[in-house]
Amino acid sequence: MTLDKNYIADHIRQALKEDIGTGDYSSICCIDAAETNVARLTAKQDGIICGVEIAEMVFEQVDNTLRFTAFKHDGDRIKVGDVVFRVEGSARAILAAERTALNYIQRLSGIATQTAEYVTLIEGTDAKLLDTRKTTPTFRMMEKYAVAVGGGCNHRFGLYDMIMLKDNHVDFAGGIEKAISQAYDFVKQNKTLKIEIEVRNFAELDKVLAIGHIDRIMLDNFSVKDLKRAVEIINHRYETEASGGITKQTIRSYAQTGVDFISVGALTHHIASLDLSLIADK
Amino acid sequence: MTLDKNYIADHIRQALKEDIGTGDYSSICCIDAAETNVARLTAKQDGIICGVEIAEMVFEQVDNTLRFTAFKHDGDRIKVGDVVFRVEGSARAILAAERTALNYIQRLSGIATQTAEYVTLIEGTDAKLLDTRKTTPTFRMMEKYAVAVGGGCNHRFGLYDMIMLKDNHVDFAGGIEKAISQAYDFVKQNKTLKIEIEVRNFAELDKVLAIGHIDRIMLDNFSVKDLKRAVEIINHRYETEASGGITKQTIRSYAQTGVDFISVGALTHHIASLDLSLIADK
Amino acid sequence: MTLDKNYIADHIRQALKEDIGTGDYSSICCIDAAETNVARLTAKQDGIICGVEIAEMVFEQVDNTLRFTAFKHDGDRIKVGDVVFRVEGSARAILAAERTALNYIQRLSGIATQTAEYVTLIEGTDAKLLDTRKTTPTFRMMEKYAVAVGGGCNHRFGLYDMIMLKDNHVDFAGGIEKAISQAYDFVKQNKTLKIEIEVRNFAELDKVLAIGHIDRIMLDNFSVKDLKRAVEIINHRYETEASGGITKQTIRSYAQTGVDFISVGALTHHIASLDLSLIADK
Amino acid sequence: MTLDKNYIADHIRQALKEDIGTGDYSSICCIDAAETNVARLTAKQDGIICGVEIAEMVFEQVDNTLRFTAFKHDGDRIKVGDVVFRVEGSARAILAAERTALNYIQRLSGIATQTAEYVTLIEGTDAKLLDTRKTTPTFRMMEKYAVAVGGGCNHRFGLYDMIMLKDNHVDFAGGIEKAISQAYDFVKQNKTLKIEIEVRNFAELDKVLAIGHIDRIMLDNFSVKDLKRAVEIINHRYETEASGGITKQTIRSYAQTGVDFISVGALTHHIASLDLSLIADK
Amino acid sequence: MTLDKNYIADHIRQALKEDIGTGDYSSICCIDAAETNVARLTAKQDGIICGVEIAEMVFEQVDNTLRFTAFKHDGDRIKVGDVVFRVEGSARAILAAERTALNYIQRLSGIATQTAEYVTLIEGTDAKLLDTRKTTPTFRMMEKYAVAVGGGCNHRFGLYDMIMLKDNHVDFAGGIEKAISQAYDFVKQNKTLKIEIEVRNFAELDKVLAIGHIDRIMLDNFSVKDLKRAVEIINHRYETEASGGITKQTIRSYAQTGVDFISVGALTHHIASLDLSLIADK
Amino acid sequence: MTLDKNYIADHIRQALKEDIGTGDYSSICCIDAAETNVARLTAKQDGIICGVEIAEMVFEQVDNTLRFTAFKHDGDRIKVGDVVFRVEGSARAILAAERTALNYIQRLSGIATQTAEYVTLIEGTDAKLLDTRKTTPTFRMMEKYAVAVGGGCNHRFGLYDMIMLKDNHVDFAGGIEKAISQAYDFVKQNKTLKIEIEVRNFAELDKVLAIGHIDRIMLDNFSVKDLKRAVEIINHRYETEASGGITKQTIRSYAQTGVDFISVGALTHHIASLDLSLIADK
Repeated sequence: MTLDKNYIADHIRQALKEDIGTGDYSSICCIDAAETNVARLTAKQDGIICGVEIAEMVFEQVDNTLRFTAFKHDGDRIKVGDVVFRVEGSARAILAAERTALNYIQRLSGIATQTAEYVTLIEGTDAKLLDTRKTTPTFRMMEKYAVAVGGGCNHRFGLYDMIMLKDNHVDFAGGIEKAISQAYDFVKQNKTLKIEIEVRNFAELDKVLAIGHIDRIMLDNFSVKDLKRAVEIINHRYETEASGGITKQTIRSYAQTGVDFISVGALTHHIASLDLSLIADK
Repeated sequence: MTLDKNYIADHIRQALKEDIGTGDYSSICCIDAAETNVARLTAKQDGIICGVEIAEMVFEQVDNTLRFTAFKHDGDRIKVGDVVFRVEGSARAILAAERTALNYIQRLSGIATQTAEYVTLIEGTDAKLLDTRKTTPTFRMMEKYAVAVGGGCNHRFGLYDMIMLKDNHVDFAGGIEKAISQAYDFVKQNKTLKIEIEVRNFAELDKVLAIGHIDRIMLDNFSVKDLKRAVEIINHRYETEASGGITKQTIRSYAQTGVDFISVGALTHHIASLDLSLIADK
Repeated sequence: MTLDKNYIADHIRQALKEDIGTGDYSSICCIDAAETNVARLTAKQDGIICGVEIAEMVFEQVDNTLRFTAFKHDGDRIKVGDVVFRVEGSARAILAAERTALNYIQRLSGIATQTAEYVTLIEGTDAKLLDTRKTTPTFRMMEKYAVAVGGGCNHRFGLYDMIMLKDNHVDFAGGIEKAISQAYDFVKQNKTLKIEIEVRNFAELDKVLAIGHIDRIMLDNFSVKDLKRAVEIINHRYETEASGGITKQTIRSYAQTGVDFISVGALTHHIASLDLSLIADK
Repeated sequence: MTLDKNYIADHIRQALKEDIGTGDYSSICCIDAAETNVARLTAKQDGIICGVEIAEMVFEQVDNTLRFTAFKHDGDRIKVGDVVFRVEGSARAILAAERTALNYIQRLSGIATQTAEYVTLIEGTDAKLLDTRKTTPTFRMMEKYAVAVGGGCNHRFGLYDMIMLKDNHVDFAGGIEKAISQAYDFVKQNKTLKIEIEVRNFAELDKVLAIGHIDRIMLDNFSVKDLKRAVEIINHRYETEASGGITKQTIRSYAQTGVDFISVGALTHHIASLDLSLIADK
Repeated sequence: MTLDKNYIADHIRQALKEDIGTGDYSSICCIDAAETNVARLTAKQDGIICGVEIAEMVFEQVDNTLRFTAFKHDGDRIKVGDVVFRVEGSARAILAAERTALNYIQRLSGIATQTAEYVTLIEGTDAKLLDTRKTTPTFRMMEKYAVAVGGGCNHRFGLYDMIMLKDNHVDFAGGIEKAISQAYDFVKQNKTLKIEIEVRNFAELDKVLAIGHIDRIMLDNFSVKDLKRAVEIINHRYETEASGGITKQTIRSYAQTGVDFISVGALTHHIASLDLSLIADK
Repeated sequence: MTLDKNYIADHIRQALKEDIGTGDYSSICCIDAAETNVARLTAKQDGIICGVEIAEMVFEQVDNTLRFTAFKHDGDRIKVGDVVFRVEGSARAILAAERTALNYIQRLSGIATQTAEYVTLIEGTDAKLLDTRKTTPTFRMMEKYAVAVGGGCNHRFGLYDMIMLKDNHVDFAGGIEKAISQAYDFVKQNKTLKIEIEVRNFAELDKVLAIGHIDRIMLDNFSVKDLKRAVEIINHRYETEASGGITKQTIRSYAQTGVDFISVGALTHHIASLDLSLIADK
């Protein structure tokens, strides 16, 4: 995915207001407005870098005379000691932007790095890794971007861009058949959305297959063995997605079942920032 | 700390727009607008709950006819199976609000729970646990609130509410003496802010003590042994804060040095959501 | 489709600011603040009513003590003389809200009415009527809602919710095959979007059919005869959509070809407000 | 009239968000970010062009490195085949901006063109053509601008910039005399606004003339013959305005009565976009 | 004039954010959330009260369970010791709202009081007192409201609601005749605005009178004697306005010349808050 | 203090909307869009100039091709006839920006000038002059900036950046001891804020001194004699602040008591704009 520039710019504006507020008084009292400096973002941990352009925009918003040079780009694998970017100009401006820029790039690189670890674990299989909607409120676009940078795929962005029929929807509609047919009618008449339905056992799966009219089946909390059987039964008629408690330990076995997608909430609900440090000359 | 209601309301408004966008089409196509339901937030993991009122506001913004009853309140210790709140009313509204409400409460409870673990580790000592500015952009107020709910203390909220003199400030000012005197003059004339200065060794500490005019000394990357000696030297003349790579394994030793504060970035830069589930009747 | 309440509320807020500005001085100078009145929205033309709830929200925003009773609801067929709603309360408030409420309901009813005329023309065929993105800037959600109320179906809402491959995309990608395969890869990896491709002749159609991996084919500017042949060739393997200069005179012939969808830009780029009048007691 | 640049910029920002949302995925998947192209806006229908600068701002907001050259300017008469402007640069950016730019310029040119037709019909008379407040919510400023570009005059922009006494105001005030005197007092004391009063017959007209203290009289639903007589009676003491169901068929007869202004709601409540097409090189 | 409720509500929202920021920590640390109190706004100076409803809205925004009772209303003359309103409820909420409510009501009452002093000075003459555009940025609507409450009249609200031809306009247009005729044409064609022209001597006045087509003449920096002569010359053909350095000492002489309006910048550019105090029970 | 550029830019945007609204019609009708002019801000009164950069930003927002040259800078002492800045470019743009730019710079210079008068009165003493929170709603940042430019010091910016314990807080907390200890605990645990406590007599002062744990004592409404004694008793253990009805007549006597700070509400609640005039060439 790509991020809309205006969207990021607004987000950064809020983040800077949050951190700077009425002013960076530590710098104002100690550093002359005319002082300049050079600083380099340096990796203190291996990983996948993500957020370089966002960081550049943070520095630019604080002071558009700062000169920013990127040596690594989103998706690059970095090693301890690598210099990711260099920023030069007003010392006050660099310090005022530092924490906000780091908070974006460290969090996003943490997500991209973790995503890449999952992706590596399923390499050689046909399965693709998906994220979920379990994201930080108001930070979802960024987090989904980091998943994509890390090599993962994005599941739906919100309630608006896919039909996902869960047990509640089935129960309220009055059964699987009614739920699917109502969704199918809706999609024909209203919005060009794909339909995914969640099944929790083979009985539900059979009903779904008998009806059709869907794009993807989510197999929720299936064991590896059951998942393999379900994938065989579905036999590429519909996309398949495994979900529910899949971890780094178990993901490869799931991927080897032939399932198309595996969704992992931990990509965005368990976040460890990547260790990066902005080292100034002075 | 407390959170400003208008601030949270605006935040939730953005979060709901992010998730719902043009509409929750899965519910719209399958669930009649008049259907009602009851759902209960249930703990699937032990921890400290945080974000109950925020969750209530999420449901209220989606549909202010929903009836919300809280059984646990921010700061309560919960156990697997505990019901945190109950929400009743329009089935569509509950589903539209669910993910956003969960994203707030799971993340904040995760932070509060982890904070409480650190606090427990230093129980019986005089040390207080502090957070940092290493937070998710645009989510800092919430995250700092969760730290407070978990029993931690809040360090400065941003660049605007404390003077923090780091090595850069000292270098640019032309030495520790000049940095402190400029900060002290600023604080006298402009803003009623406290002054903290970072020292990285005993030579710097000695200079700071010779000058005074500060409120707190941050002892950065001191070993436990050195920290103990520094605390003795400072001897309560100024508040003391230990920082730099302190973990669950080492925090108790640091706390036993007599230091006043220990700041831990991991409280907010390593976030694992608490496992909570909204279970609906139907 | 349904309209998000918060979205409409914001839209109305802007519309009222546009009309009322610093105040409705005509009423302020002539009508006592305590005066009350009753007014009824009366049809002066037959049609499909659309925007009753929006009108209610307009009155409510101006003065939430006004009492509003709807006698007709969105989608109802109305005849000259029918009373659509009744509003009672502060005379000043009714007059301040009147023009804005009318502007919404007249425009939307005009669109719904015209849409219904097209829908009637294709009754008995399998074709569904679609709108386009040719809408009034910042008024699209409302206009698409009116199309749905009039019995039409909504095509994509914007550039973000469907892949639509036009000649430009094909040319830049380097041919139909590359365009489709790049779109297909994107959709697998990034966003769960449907893919539609535009073809302008049988040669292009053949290429598309040889490749597959799409959801819908738009047959642009095909004659009725050619469209019929194309639909037979496609033979339900993909959804089909006819577009390009289709009018009330020709739409039935197009619909009888067996095509699934017919998109008509005029639904929203040629708008005639329905004649409705708010008649006050006094 | 002129349009405020900041106002238009905000409007465009909303319009682009409406159309582009999270991204123009069709282009993202098929067109390399570095590709460039040239496109020309070409007339497929004769008319008056309106919105060239707005279109330029749309392209600029999407990508400020696009080069835009205008060959026609707002108010110019264009013929089929004329090139209105040329835009060159990023192919992705041109496609992302295209629909929004067209939606503005087609609608506004449609209004300007229709306005010019009415203006032509009354050429040689002293009557001026006026618009009304019957506009698209949140699009009024643009629509009134298009009327001016088409040679029409703008009536009041909203409730705030003129006193218009209709029958309701007269009834509530307790008669024409009281209504006018209250309006006159208000205008003297509060806001420098002109006063217009609506009359529906000669009895009302006589009363108004006996009182004076107004700037303009609106003669509502007068026949051509009655209007002529009323205009003679008023005899230039006040401005005169004819309104109510005046069409292209009847407007010239009305204009020949010597009335100063004729207001026509259809200018903005019956909108047909002008047929313009953005033709790309590739 | 009246103030638009939504406008005030937005203004108050910004003002409260300015004062409360992240929280009223003095109250949070010392006062239990459940404590209640009663406070009364008491006059410590005689004057005209203005801003009672605004103050009520401030309290309501902070906490909508506060009970507010007004004993005096905007425009009432108050004496030392008078109780203006009483507010009861959460002690924390009353304290959080106090300063903002006082800042509105004290400033506005100061303006209303000073305006009333000027109005009293010209009592018995036909002259009306006008304000100017010399107001506090973003506070103009409030300040003009206070002038009206104090018995003054409002001049134009901004550049948009009246044509005011000053020397610059005359010079650029190429003389008085051209300036007036261009303004007159504009007003006929574009906006229903009144036209005022500034003259600085009798030569300019003569030219203006020879041309006509205006609504009001501003006589700038005329002596009392000259003003009297000018008013006689104009002889009610146009409204007359005196401006330029008129003070409390000289205003009555100016008013006795028969001039219609006298504008006084000091009403809003020299502001002294009225002394009011919120006295709490506890 | 310094003002955040983004903050000022937003403020100016609102101020310009307030003044310009839909357009500066006087200039539009009389001045050709291509005309240029030169104007100079000239002092008509001696004082301290404040707001030069803000004025520059006003002109820039209206038209960023205007050329602005400052000859005086914030804090400079100016004399009648001095030219503060020169602006050159579009005549329409200069006129559209004029009033807003003047309203900022005149008000702020008025505050800076008055502040400087107070500062001069206490020259040679150790007392510093403080402002208060008695400011114009939504204009506080600007007003506090003007106080700093005039040589004054800024007291707290709002309720969020200092603990200030007044009689209410003491009463609700249950006495001075409890109030201070609760504030001290809060500050240790939550926010790094300084604590000030208000005392109104020696009994209260004694209690406060017995407890300690505070940063500053506000001596409210103490006579000069009592203040002197109180300052001696406190003997530099805590900062001291005098407040309550201190005027230009009495401030020097108060300052000679040795008190550290004197707060004067009149700095911002009694505002007289400095007389400055923008003189255009034409």
